Amino acid sequence: MRETDFVGGFAKGLAVIEAFGEAKPRLTITDVSKETGLDRATARRCLLTLAELGYAAYDGKFFELTPKILRLGHAYLSATPLPRLVQPYLDQLSEKVGQSASVSVLDGVEIVYVARAAQKRVMSINLTPGSRLPAYCASMGRVLLAALPEAEARAIVEASDRKANTPYTKTEPEALMEEFARVRQSGYALIDQELEIGLRSIAVPLENARGRVVAALNIGAPAAHASAEDMVTRYLPAMREVQAALRPVLA
Amino acid sequence: MRETDFVGGFAKGLAVIEAFGEAKPRLTITDVSKETGLDRATARRCLLTLAELGYAAYDGKFFELTPKILRLGHAYLSATPLPRLVQPYLDQLSEKVGQSASVSVLDGVEIVYVARAAQKRVMSINLTPGSRLPAYCASMGRVLLAALPEAEARAIVEASDRKANTPYTKTEPEALMEEFARVRQSGYALIDQELEIGLRSIAVPLENARGRVVAALNIGAPAAHASAEDMVTRYLPAMREVQAALRPVLA
Repeated sequence: MRETDFVGGFAKGLAVIEAFGEAKPRLTITDVSKETGLDRATARRCLLTLAELGYAAYDGKFFELTPKILRLGHAYLSATPLPRLVQPYLDQLSEKVGQSASVSVLDGVEIVYVARAAQKRVMSINLTPGSRLPAYCASMGRVLLAALPEAEARAIVEASDRKANTPYTKTEPEALMEEFARVRQSGYALIDQELEIGLRSIAVPLENARGRVVAALNIGAPAAHASAEDMVTRYLPAMREVQAALRPVLA
Repeated sequence: MRETDFVGGFAKGLAVIEAFGEAKPRLTITDVSKETGLDRATARRCLLTLAELGYAAYDGKFFELTPKILRLGHAYLSATPLPRLVQPYLDQLSEKVGQSASVSVLDGVEIVYVARAAQKRVMSINLTPGSRLPAYCASMGRVLLAALPEAEARAIVEASDRKANTPYTKTEPEALMEEFARVRQSGYALIDQELEIGLRSIAVPLENARGRVVAALNIGAPAAHASAEDMVTRYLPAMREVQAALRPVLA
């Protein structure tokens, strides 16, 4: 790529949008400058452009994003066939097992939820399409990392900010690489309270007709509802059915 | 705003993202140029910038958005307290009445879903946070338009592409303005198969502690489940409770 093919103002503007986030709903020009590393004048121009286009509101001091910004993420969700294709299967699966079911894809060191059928909320965080979790400690993340060439999976693990969310969280690269090998062999990943105490989840890869892993499917359940063994005996068969049904459908 | 405060490359780039959408998941440079009105060279530079930053994938001919683009919409969803605040109420309401419940806000002539608790899917379209519907023919849209000064509501109605989705859809500006007056008096809007045959929905405004309408709440139900009268007698009382519970909570 030649440097002249790069629209610097566009790249900076996208960084400004990403500066907004949880616990940072209202930002000043100074806040955005700090958050993005852009100089104040550039941050200001990007923010004013967002306001002029209706993607942000400005009260003279603080900027906040408006719902118009959802058009950008929605461009992906409505353009990509994956969420539409999997949603009916997720709905049926979630209803059948009485637990939440989700589909996600890998984006860097994180997984991104692209579809979800929720039963009663059991996690402390609210997951919707677009939500992110660190891949290394999420069942869908383990499945997606296990599907990568080993060197690539290792690089992602090493680049991850590996916190022990609970006393059970695996954080050592070697332990994680061994876990990926187990996942490849068994065809599923089971997370037993590694992300959050009281929560278990099980995931399988979703392959397309050519055998390439394009996404992961999971079921999450309160630990009080299902032991680790229950997760496998109760939920895995229904997940295998969805996996098989989707294989010829996914591109 | 001075012209020098506007980052043209940023504005063009955002238009390029919005060019992707349903039925347009994969676009060539020419497609994007046509869709946005940008010249080919500009469209190309914006697309290559998206690809360079990982927001798009490029196979040498077609561009498609990647899940990274969801970060942009998610910046709003996670930054804005509204979705988080209303979600537990929506979950409870949806479970209580056995129907889908949603919250949306107005964006131009459309409503945007910011939170949703879905029961079995009844609409032909798949609604998730970020989904849009024309305000004039959606129950939440009627509630939000009814809360505006009349001249403003009329301007939005007149700017709307008012199609008769079904034989029941109100499309005449005068009929809609009368409907808004009814909504203001009764405190709720009822849509009886105006958006889609077989679907009814009822909406109420959500006010903040200062009495300003900040969003709308609705319940949608298959016509076979509930007559228009049932919508009011069965669902409205539970919706009124949510409305009252949220009033002190909403900013």
